[in-house]
Amino acid sequence: MKALAVDIGGTHANCGLVENDRILTHESVDLTGTMNIRAVLSRVGDVLRQLVHQHSQSLTDFQGIAVGFAGLVDSRIGRVVSTNKKYDDAPEVDFCAWARDAFGLPLRIENDARLALLGESYAGAARGFGDVVMMTLGTGIGGVAMIEGKLLRGKHAQAGCLGGHIPVLFNGRACTCGGIGCAEAEASGWALPGVVRSVPGFPESSLSSIANIGFKHLFEEAERGDRVAQIVRDRCLNIWAVDAVALIHAYDPEVIVIGGGVMERADIISPYIEAYVQKYAWTPWGKVQIRRAELANNAALVGAVPLISERIS
Amino acid sequence: MKALAVDIGGTHANCGLVENDRILTHESVDLTGTMNIRAVLSRVGDVLRQLVHQHSQSLTDFQGIAVGFAGLVDSRIGRVVSTNKKYDDAPEVDFCAWARDAFGLPLRIENDARLALLGESYAGAARGFGDVVMMTLGTGIGGVAMIEGKLLRGKHAQAGCLGGHIPVLFNGRACTCGGIGCAEAEASGWALPGVVRSVPGFPESSLSSIANIGFKHLFEEAERGDRVAQIVRDRCLNIWAVDAVALIHAYDPEVIVIGGGVMERADIISPYIEAYVQKYAWTPWGKVQIRRAELANNAALVGAVPLISERIS
Repeated sequence: MKALAVDIGGTHANCGLVENDRILTHESVDLTGTMNIRAVLSRVGDVLRQLVHQHSQSLTDFQGIAVGFAGLVDSRIGRVVSTNKKYDDAPEVDFCAWARDAFGLPLRIENDARLALLGESYAGAARGFGDVVMMTLGTGIGGVAMIEGKLLRGKHAQAGCLGGHIPVLFNGRACTCGGIGCAEAEASGWALPGVVRSVPGFPESSLSSIANIGFKHLFEEAERGDRVAQIVRDRCLNIWAVDAVALIHAYDPEVIVIGGGVMERADIISPYIEAYVQKYAWTPWGKVQIRRAELANNAALVGAVPLISERIS
Repeated sequence: MKALAVDIGGTHANCGLVENDRILTHESVDLTGTMNIRAVLSRVGDVLRQLVHQHSQSLTDFQGIAVGFAGLVDSRIGRVVSTNKKYDDAPEVDFCAWARDAFGLPLRIENDARLALLGESYAGAARGFGDVVMMTLGTGIGGVAMIEGKLLRGKHAQAGCLGGHIPVLFNGRACTCGGIGCAEAEASGWALPGVVRSVPGFPESSLSSIANIGFKHLFEEAERGDRVAQIVRDRCLNIWAVDAVALIHAYDPEVIVIGGGVMERADIISPYIEAYVQKYAWTPWGKVQIRRAELANNAALVGAVPLISERIS
């Protein structure tokens, strides 16, 4: 089966043509400054048509189009349910109508993290597993669940996709979701500068001279011996691992796949989470595997064919 | 449909005869000192036979027997998967063989909290809802989930039933489950004495003269103005509410049903959790209802017929 695939993120859209588990071609579209989802779709449509043409394909070769979107999505009705400060017009847009008009193709839209999990389960780190949690450590924290071979969606399509918004500190920081002490509010890319600045001794830390403190700096300065960086690094590792335990207790997976930009330091993160989970998660049946995501930024594109093929009730 | 029903708890077994959503008769059996599940089953068997006889029924009137057990249970294979310091021989027992030999009836066994949720959903506070989380606040904290009309079970039967073991304080207290900072480790009946004693000023508190501090004392002394009691009461309320938000984010319910002995103070607990959830949970579709459990200690018995009738794949 061939599909058009789009992964719409905060700053880029990844557009591609896929055949089963193979990406035939793909192109990243810069969305900086585009706050309107209709404008995004117009640009994405142009790029997809171009890719089809360049690859000597015809639109009739494709069975459908899959869209990943960074927000709450109900794939059963093909709508975005809620956004989080980006593309706030998306809930009003009829994506299926757009696909019909622009390509004459059926469309499935899904939360981007769920689509990435479908990809990793179809042809990546979770191949062969039906019970999977995927965590994404980056600007935000993602946490999505597949149970017995099916994405968990629930009544209003928001079950099994808010794993970064499980509170890990009941009296912690305010989160962009409106909650308090979410894993994302305590240990994500956007939260990091605030967390670092709150540590006593910050003015003397080597981090205090960095304009936009990211995890790359944090790990580097910690390794150079900066005390504040070490404290925050260890706290983040602890919170990611505790979030993993929460998701194991909630969803009973065989494997946790971890992706996202922060996993450039998988050398430190994976063994830490593995050891923590082994020690503190209650899994009398055996050991949850911890695996690094394999498909990086293309996981959602690889999820296109399973999403389109899925029987949704 | 008529069924035999047993709810095996830590100190008592509640044995009953049920017809659909009606309890025909029931009797509580004291299990103090009984640490062996085979001894429990022998006593439970006698009591059930007695009840059948006293109620002028015949065993052939009954379609099956439902058992609730306080531990991890895989109802698909009819086995206890893991216990938590009570009836540790239960994983070796073939409950179905026992029911066949003792009554000539088919048996279904399920985690007691899941069975109580089935009861509340069949004929209690969650009647008419397919998407339900039930929290139990007592000696431990229970949290079980039903999604789209089905109990969530997962690969190893431990999805959707460990809601008290979601960490709410990433660097908190050790839990009996082996985890750290679980809601149960921070705000359950067994954790309460330790939490109270750790508050500065405890030696001057009116609680310091009480031998086994329970939630009844906590609420009473807080209302009498004891500062330590007020601090711990407010912390517990906060943690229960945060656990509710975690379970909403994990399972997407329409309603949260709250039961357990601590809900004798539902006058304080329900409005607190309702207000917190409304303010801090991310539910763009609307408002999660907070309801007090209606069936008290008989919820699991009322769950017998739905459990026996359920098609388990």
